[in-house]
Amino acid sequence: MSFIDVPEDHPFPIQNLPYGVFSTSNEPQHRIGIAIGDEILDLSKIIHLFKGQHLCDKAAIVFKQTTLNEFLSLGKDAWHEARLTIRNLLDKNNPILRDDSQLRKEAFVPQSLAKMHLPAQIGDYTDFYSSLEHATNVGSMFRDPKNALTPNWRYMPIGYHGRASSIVISGTPIRRPNGQTRPEEDKPPVFGPCRLMDFELEMAFLIGGPDNPLGQPIPIDKAQDRIFGMVLMNDWSARDIQKWEYIPLGPFLAKNVGTTISPWVVTMEALEPFKVPNTPQNPEPLPYLCHKDDYNFDINLDVYLKPDGMESNLICTSNYKYLYWTMKQQLTHHSITGCNIRSGDLLATGTISGPKPNSYGSMLELSWKGTKPLHLNDGVITRTFLQDNDTVLFEGYCQGNGYRVGFGHCDGKLLPPLIMDFH
Amino acid sequence: MSFIDVPEDHPFPIQNLPYGVFSTSNEPQHRIGIAIGDEILDLSKIIHLFKGQHLCDKAAIVFKQTTLNEFLSLGKDAWHEARLTIRNLLDKNNPILRDDSQLRKEAFVPQSLAKMHLPAQIGDYTDFYSSLEHATNVGSMFRDPKNALTPNWRYMPIGYHGRASSIVISGTPIRRPNGQTRPEEDKPPVFGPCRLMDFELEMAFLIGGPDNPLGQPIPIDKAQDRIFGMVLMNDWSARDIQKWEYIPLGPFLAKNVGTTISPWVVTMEALEPFKVPNTPQNPEPLPYLCHKDDYNFDINLDVYLKPDGMESNLICTSNYKYLYWTMKQQLTHHSITGCNIRSGDLLATGTISGPKPNSYGSMLELSWKGTKPLHLNDGVITRTFLQDNDTVLFEGYCQGNGYRVGFGHCDGKLLPPLIMDFH
Repeated sequence: MSFIDVPEDHPFPIQNLPYGVFSTSNEPQHRIGIAIGDEILDLSKIIHLFKGQHLCDKAAIVFKQTTLNEFLSLGKDAWHEARLTIRNLLDKNNPILRDDSQLRKEAFVPQSLAKMHLPAQIGDYTDFYSSLEHATNVGSMFRDPKNALTPNWRYMPIGYHGRASSIVISGTPIRRPNGQTRPEEDKPPVFGPCRLMDFELEMAFLIGGPDNPLGQPIPIDKAQDRIFGMVLMNDWSARDIQKWEYIPLGPFLAKNVGTTISPWVVTMEALEPFKVPNTPQNPEPLPYLCHKDDYNFDINLDVYLKPDGMESNLICTSNYKYLYWTMKQQLTHHSITGCNIRSGDLLATGTISGPKPNSYGSMLELSWKGTKPLHLNDGVITRTFLQDNDTVLFEGYCQGNGYRVGFGHCDGKLLPPLIMDFH
Repeated sequence: MSFIDVPEDHPFPIQNLPYGVFSTSNEPQHRIGIAIGDEILDLSKIIHLFKGQHLCDKAAIVFKQTTLNEFLSLGKDAWHEARLTIRNLLDKNNPILRDDSQLRKEAFVPQSLAKMHLPAQIGDYTDFYSSLEHATNVGSMFRDPKNALTPNWRYMPIGYHGRASSIVISGTPIRRPNGQTRPEEDKPPVFGPCRLMDFELEMAFLIGGPDNPLGQPIPIDKAQDRIFGMVLMNDWSARDIQKWEYIPLGPFLAKNVGTTISPWVVTMEALEPFKVPNTPQNPEPLPYLCHKDDYNFDINLDVYLKPDGMESNLICTSNYKYLYWTMKQQLTHHSITGCNIRSGDLLATGTISGPKPNSYGSMLELSWKGTKPLHLNDGVITRTFLQDNDTVLFEGYCQGNGYRVGFGHCDGKLLPPLIMDFH
């Protein structure tokens, strides 16, 4: 227990201790903090309290940065030491912070007064496609229901390079894009606003160091040392643009409209109690992708859709644990041809759909390509894809015994398209 | 003419003035320089000589950086002013530098003593597919010769997000990757060294500011203001890995083995005299992609293959001007759904193949999928794809009247694969 009061259903108890980057109007410099209850512990103000071997010299450097990158690059022993130190400092029986009213005044900031920023300078961002249910649903709709998965799908975690610049923090509005689509297959393409705007329920993991050099893969038994923590992610998708552009080189402009992440990075150490068995894989992967230990996590994921000026509707209840490929497999596969993976890189799961229709992680699947409209707000509203000014809200949490380890929010409002004077 | 002696066929006369980042063993700090003949003019040593309105205050900041990013972000007026200032300082009739023997000693470094580095911190890297001949060749081999282009190809510059972390500077060895392939279509995939290692002859352009915010496309009549300059690029490609992985989300691990760029960024101002008419486009693109002005360039491109311990062989003579889509069209298309393009981003052309078989920009095309081996070194050597310890060398230049504007080299040696103890 902490001396900071945290209710049972709060996402940020002392068992969590997620990292984020924030600023305040009084102090606009971006700085690194830890969420505890409704407060933020500003690590830049308590550098002198990190006395362990890995951080005694380094804390003054890494916790004075405007992003987590330097801290991430220190590696797992430093992360572990930081967690122990912070947990100890927040313990209700530890007087160091608790009874130092001056330091408490300096080091704690109410979350309500803070503006959150991207937690890291994301060098490269990769998106996987690791939900069997999502890949099967999409393959059934656009390919052949009897042959929904591509031949490679069960042999490797399929992924693609995404756009790092368009990753934004929860709360950032997203503008419905204009772009090129071909509504009628026997006619030329047209230019105009996207008509099939969608979200994708995803999670993403943030990479730490030490970095592998180019040409040196990360063996699967070392992969977990590079995985610092996780966030929620909304991979906004312009389906009609995607459909016309993606052959043969994959999704491009349909995805760089914006990608929203939640601001608090929940560490793998905080998620450790919520490990569950891996999803069985058939056929067994090639040896470079095999690991016997469990690296799957029971993380509840909820999606709400809030039409403008109306109440939120729960439209999807999914779980991270449904994924077929593990993060270790994703990371090792990503590096197997020698790709250097750097601290601050972000790797995402792909849409997380579960086995039931109400666990599908996109409007595409929930409305089954628009054929089954969702009835919202007591039947007042229907939706197939997103409408202008809809807000999409993600929540995620692990349920412990009397506490939660939560991710907070990953929210974004869809703005109307720009009026373009060319077409 | 410059007071620095530059032969007629040298890539770096006073008409060129390309930017690069270098260090020396005496002074290991990375710094920004201009190539002139066989020398580098170290801009960090002549900051006080930038007296124009855009740089008088800024030179001390942007030319003290370890990358070009800050300078790039200043935009086209500052780039123009820098060029005029440097050209004036290097003029044989200008005594300021010419006759200041102390400053000359400090400010000039022989290229032979310099180590070159990446010119910018590349935030995002995008690769296009803009050669009609290349796309037709590849489509003929892997799809249907009568239907080689995908339906979207003539309507938009097809592209995909690439990996920024694995971009390296000329001279960096590239390791043949291990990875997953499926040599026999009716059998499961296997793990092992790539068997079909290839180069791709490309060029790439470096983006400057001011950056467009997320959600705000770059109109085509503003696109050229964001294009700072160009480099040569070798997009090393593992063909067998690519073939097995790329459906449905595009090339991934086949490409992040390494991507080599030449160190000297030749500015668009230096390339201006070598403008040639755009390639005719049929059908006419949608209006957002239309520009009437020429933005194509006559840049000679040569590829040499040097087997280990043997002489180099010229295996390809191509030209930038063969490309179908212009850089302006590529950039505007990239931003049309709102993607924020940042200073330091790198956008590449895709393989530049010309109409004749000896102008094809990859081994895949030169050897026509391995069916027509190349005979090298007076017939002593044959090649279909690359062999271990082969070096691939690119050169590029524009031929002026009595001078060249050259790109220098983009070279890399292919090392044997790592022995992996799993398979």
